[in-house]
Amino acid sequence: MKQLINSSGNIRQHLLAGLTYTYNDKLNWHAQTGIVTKKIIPNDKVVLISGGGCGHEPAHVGYIGENMLDCAVMGTIFEPPASSEILQAIEKTYNGHGTLLIIKNFEKDLARFLEAERLAKAKGMLISHVVVDDDCSIESGTFKKRRRGVAGTIFVHKILGAAASEGKTLDELQLLGENLIPMIKTLGVAFSPASPIGVIPQQYELAEDEMYFGIGIHGEPGYRIETMQSSERIAIELVNKLKQQYDRNELEKAAILVNGLGGIPLLELGIFMNDVQQLLDIEDIGISYKRMGNFLTAYNTDGLSLTLLAIQDEKWLDYLNIPTDAFGWK
Amino acid sequence: MKQLINSSGNIRQHLLAGLTYTYNDKLNWHAQTGIVTKKIIPNDKVVLISGGGCGHEPAHVGYIGENMLDCAVMGTIFEPPASSEILQAIEKTYNGHGTLLIIKNFEKDLARFLEAERLAKAKGMLISHVVVDDDCSIESGTFKKRRRGVAGTIFVHKILGAAASEGKTLDELQLLGENLIPMIKTLGVAFSPASPIGVIPQQYELAEDEMYFGIGIHGEPGYRIETMQSSERIAIELVNKLKQQYDRNELEKAAILVNGLGGIPLLELGIFMNDVQQLLDIEDIGISYKRMGNFLTAYNTDGLSLTLLAIQDEKWLDYLNIPTDAFGWK
Repeated sequence: MKQLINSSGNIRQHLLAGLTYTYNDKLNWHAQTGIVTKKIIPNDKVVLISGGGCGHEPAHVGYIGENMLDCAVMGTIFEPPASSEILQAIEKTYNGHGTLLIIKNFEKDLARFLEAERLAKAKGMLISHVVVDDDCSIESGTFKKRRRGVAGTIFVHKILGAAASEGKTLDELQLLGENLIPMIKTLGVAFSPASPIGVIPQQYELAEDEMYFGIGIHGEPGYRIETMQSSERIAIELVNKLKQQYDRNELEKAAILVNGLGGIPLLELGIFMNDVQQLLDIEDIGISYKRMGNFLTAYNTDGLSLTLLAIQDEKWLDYLNIPTDAFGWK
Repeated sequence: MKQLINSSGNIRQHLLAGLTYTYNDKLNWHAQTGIVTKKIIPNDKVVLISGGGCGHEPAHVGYIGENMLDCAVMGTIFEPPASSEILQAIEKTYNGHGTLLIIKNFEKDLARFLEAERLAKAKGMLISHVVVDDDCSIESGTFKKRRRGVAGTIFVHKILGAAASEGKTLDELQLLGENLIPMIKTLGVAFSPASPIGVIPQQYELAEDEMYFGIGIHGEPGYRIETMQSSERIAIELVNKLKQQYDRNELEKAAILVNGLGGIPLLELGIFMNDVQQLLDIEDIGISYKRMGNFLTAYNTDGLSLTLLAIQDEKWLDYLNIPTDAFGWK
């Protein structure tokens, strides 16, 4: 795929300028940084911050809004922001009710967000974090689970965001996150490798008729390359693998997310959603909530992911259903 | 790009099943047909119907909702529905207040929608239409304007939709449409040709480093192939060409739409929006309304279009700003 950019060094600047211009009624960009916040930082609730590299739009800037995030800290493409910038974001939004960091489980993301948390704590701030690790792909050699943080992260943004607006304390939110996250499982499939702009070398090749199960959101490899399958066959593979991650009694009621990786037409997501629905119907898994679209993308990747959230508490559904004005949540 | 489908003959079925499953709180699909309506057809206002081929998702099913369409009639990929099916849709939704068809200016679309209108009139129904022809690309040989109906169509859906909800009569809506449509101008650019599934042969080739200005939404050719340009250069070309379509006094206040053709990352639309904004600022064109995202796509095409709407009446802005629950309008 071709890349529509200006000069690569300024991608983050250009992107955040464009996003915050488009949504300038809601968002406030701290120019020259990767920090975007709500227009008005709430002073009566725990502050929720997430972030990571660019290249996953609308994540995470698109999840700033009522009942979701208060702030997103963005790095350059596929590269999380520096600890110092995360610390700045924590300080800019601190309101005395505590701050919760929602971190995707990648080595660099963890290191930088946790360092910023450490620094904030040393300054006496009330702060905590949760780590999202919903990807249940496995390494093809070792069969080790990868546990990357991928599309399921947006369920965490929404549920914890709504709970924070309801007035839950930092400890309560962390506990809610720790109960919620193990119930979220995601698997992705790519029809083309990601081609980030001069940041990470392309990590795998796919032939014209090949696809890759279990890929990550930064062009990381998956667990099996196959010749291109029908939507139905891909749905069978993903639903089966995801189902196996749960005890049967956990999965009576589920929320699902059919997430485009950014380069896939909505037409194909619609066809895939139809196949997923039929499979879950056969399994007697009740779908209480569903979303479809580009929610957490992987720059220049043609592909999709499927996320299941096994609902253990009706309250989770209420939190999903509460409206938000975050532009990425549609 | 690869195509994620099942068997090509059933694409429309699979797609509409998936879309209407996902939004089953709002939409009602008349199974086996291409007709999707609001869950409850309003009985106190003019009915708005649009449609065309599939492959432009979220158009047009995504624009069914409060203050937008009441019904969409969809054909197969890049092929409008049959007149008989459009007539069925008119009959199913008819409430005595009249029906307005919003038609994109393509030969087949016109022929079939107008034939359905003729048949409905013969049955004594109150019905009328508007034709959207916002594309201002020109044929490269003849310099003839193409006047296809493209992304600007969704501004028509929204403005006429909100006006219909306000209680305007069929005649008033048609007049509003006829005033509005000449003020909407769109130009598109492709970085890859559309590759529809066995429907229309690929109409042009692009080399790895080439792009095409002025393309259509069904893989139609444009007016100039060039080597890939920066976002800023593309913004200059599109803004200049669009501006020339207006008298200067018409373009003091504008609404803009940065529309992805479906295969382009939101990151790139954000960068492009930033460039467009800067150019319009320099020109002293006030942007009173803006949207960015995949609104009217061209199946499997990497590219974008820019639409300007020169606001001649503050009421148009009010209609744009009235909320809707249509899932494609975000």
